[in-house]
Amino acid sequence: MKFELEHSDPQSQARVGTLQTAHGQIPTPIFMPVGTIGTVKGVHQKELSEDIKAKIILGNTYHLYLRPGTELLEKAGGLHQFMNWQGPILTDSGGFQVFSLAHRRKIKEEGATFASHIDGSKHLFSPEGVMDIQRSIGADIIMAFDECTPYPCDYRYAKKSMELTHRWLKRCYTRFKETEPKYGYPQSLFPIVQGSVYKDLRLKSAETVAQYADLGIAIGGLSVGEPKEEMYAMTDLVCSQLPTDKPRYLMGVGTPANILECIALGVDMFDCVMPTRNARHGLIFTRKGKLNIKNKKWKDDFSPIDEDAPNPTSRQHTKAYLRHLFTVNELLGMQIATLHNLSFYLELVREARERILDGSFRAWKDELVPILEQKR
Amino acid sequence: MKFELEHSDPQSQARVGTLQTAHGQIPTPIFMPVGTIGTVKGVHQKELSEDIKAKIILGNTYHLYLRPGTELLEKAGGLHQFMNWQGPILTDSGGFQVFSLAHRRKIKEEGATFASHIDGSKHLFSPEGVMDIQRSIGADIIMAFDECTPYPCDYRYAKKSMELTHRWLKRCYTRFKETEPKYGYPQSLFPIVQGSVYKDLRLKSAETVAQYADLGIAIGGLSVGEPKEEMYAMTDLVCSQLPTDKPRYLMGVGTPANILECIALGVDMFDCVMPTRNARHGLIFTRKGKLNIKNKKWKDDFSPIDEDAPNPTSRQHTKAYLRHLFTVNELLGMQIATLHNLSFYLELVREARERILDGSFRAWKDELVPILEQKR
Repeated sequence: MKFELEHSDPQSQARVGTLQTAHGQIPTPIFMPVGTIGTVKGVHQKELSEDIKAKIILGNTYHLYLRPGTELLEKAGGLHQFMNWQGPILTDSGGFQVFSLAHRRKIKEEGATFASHIDGSKHLFSPEGVMDIQRSIGADIIMAFDECTPYPCDYRYAKKSMELTHRWLKRCYTRFKETEPKYGYPQSLFPIVQGSVYKDLRLKSAETVAQYADLGIAIGGLSVGEPKEEMYAMTDLVCSQLPTDKPRYLMGVGTPANILECIALGVDMFDCVMPTRNARHGLIFTRKGKLNIKNKKWKDDFSPIDEDAPNPTSRQHTKAYLRHLFTVNELLGMQIATLHNLSFYLELVREARERILDGSFRAWKDELVPILEQKR
Repeated sequence: MKFELEHSDPQSQARVGTLQTAHGQIPTPIFMPVGTIGTVKGVHQKELSEDIKAKIILGNTYHLYLRPGTELLEKAGGLHQFMNWQGPILTDSGGFQVFSLAHRRKIKEEGATFASHIDGSKHLFSPEGVMDIQRSIGADIIMAFDECTPYPCDYRYAKKSMELTHRWLKRCYTRFKETEPKYGYPQSLFPIVQGSVYKDLRLKSAETVAQYADLGIAIGGLSVGEPKEEMYAMTDLVCSQLPTDKPRYLMGVGTPANILECIALGVDMFDCVMPTRNARHGLIFTRKGKLNIKNKKWKDDFSPIDEDAPNPTSRQHTKAYLRHLFTVNELLGMQIATLHNLSFYLELVREARERILDGSFRAWKDELVPILEQKR
């Protein structure tokens, strides 16, 4: 696996590159649709690969560990085989879900104990265990086990937590190096920068985790409730500190505007549940701003869902039809909206990539961002 | 619009024909996926036309009348335009839903009054009104307004109800002839044979309604709880009485075995919620029998959902994966299962058609029916 940086934008920190994995090449900047539990909700794998041309998807270690579990995933030959997705996969470390979803969680030096949100059963996620789970899942890119601090978070706690994350990282790295991939193709471990919204912690963390970065580096603990100015400031600071030859993955970010701004700050990879989760609630992203398709104003609007959309479904169906599907609570509403939003995100990063290459990115981004944030 | 009878099976009453509509040709025998409320639940229109090659779909007048309503459908230019489905559509008359779903229903000579199951609002469905609604929906084939008797039903009530249905039919026919299609293509009205499980009533009804059949004839009031032997006996009797040059549509039937048996009795058109509704509950039809994918026995079965399936999705995904999707309550489980079952039904009638043409239908049907009814 390797990353090739192909071009840097002279007018911003934006970059264009290609990440090579055993399951295919990933052009960066890239957005990764979230496939929580072995499926991108409401979307067939064929639609991901052929219709909206997703280049990599994300899986959640916490969810996959609980169901179907590593035993079944190993029998299946890993997550790619299990879900019949032949493109690259990245898995998170499960830390975020342990801290946001599981019950009775307790953090110790050894790891985090928690009770399953499904059946209350007790579990321990340790750095070593999480490496083993991700070996069993078999994602191309796997994440170190970290603590994702909430916002706000006092300095003392942020520092302590970051230091724990660094000690856990060392243990992850050791375990990762001691073990082999299970399905014959290589995996790569991304360490995660933490440090909340404190500059000195972020700088320290960036410096520390870079030592463990064989291929790429993730930035965690952002988009957890802080003002976007803080998110941008921390992303900017961390990117300025990170080695230029490694892709930077900003975890859990964000809105279309967030993504363009963070591309401008030097981020290469993104994931977020926003396009999929919001779609299931009727929130549609377009180049003219976002809209709530459940709103009565679309009742008899027979214009396309999005006349500029790259995917034909969004051009062929009307706003009135999609609103009707949501009004009567039909599955197809969620399906069309999800396909649309993912297609929108993927097209946005595709165009960002082209514009970085042709030198028009900065002006395009500056013009587009305020429009993307409008409500229609 | 016209129907051409192309071949009759010498070993059974099975027939092969082609029904021509403004939206395309329908090879018969045919199965019509149910698109209740402007969508076949969980399936994109593109999947219907391209992946599983549905030749005609059904819409429900009761549901479409309540939501989105005829005013919006007219503004959209009819249901085809509203849902972006360019193939033929058949709508039922709403009678079945009024009697099974609506509240406080009351049958009078004028029509049926009822309260909406959604908001309790009061409505009247009269024969004339239902013709007008179906003109607004714009289906290629529309149904007369009838009373669908329940099972069991005493002779006296069945007779009275049938006579009312015949009087309503006359009013439907008159209104239909007095009005014009709204969207520039022709519509055809199918009358409905009733008479419960009483031979003399069924014969009387078949004779009566045939006079109002310009293109085809529907058989209603079956598959409402009666033993399958009664259903077959009534279907056989009615088909033997109906003109041979008109397609026969057996409403709401049924299992794959029911469909093959009724093709053998001379039925040309079918609809049923079974493939779609059962799919959403994890019931999968295959050529080796039906299976409940939620069953633990499929937990680590990595064989294809159906290795004989015509649609690639069912060959590419495993039983273990589909079971997982149902276990974790993921939308994609319902999507894959629905596509599979519809594809199975459509392939079954396609093969029936071929086998009628090549003379092997009867033997094939006799061998397959007991297997289709097995539980795996």
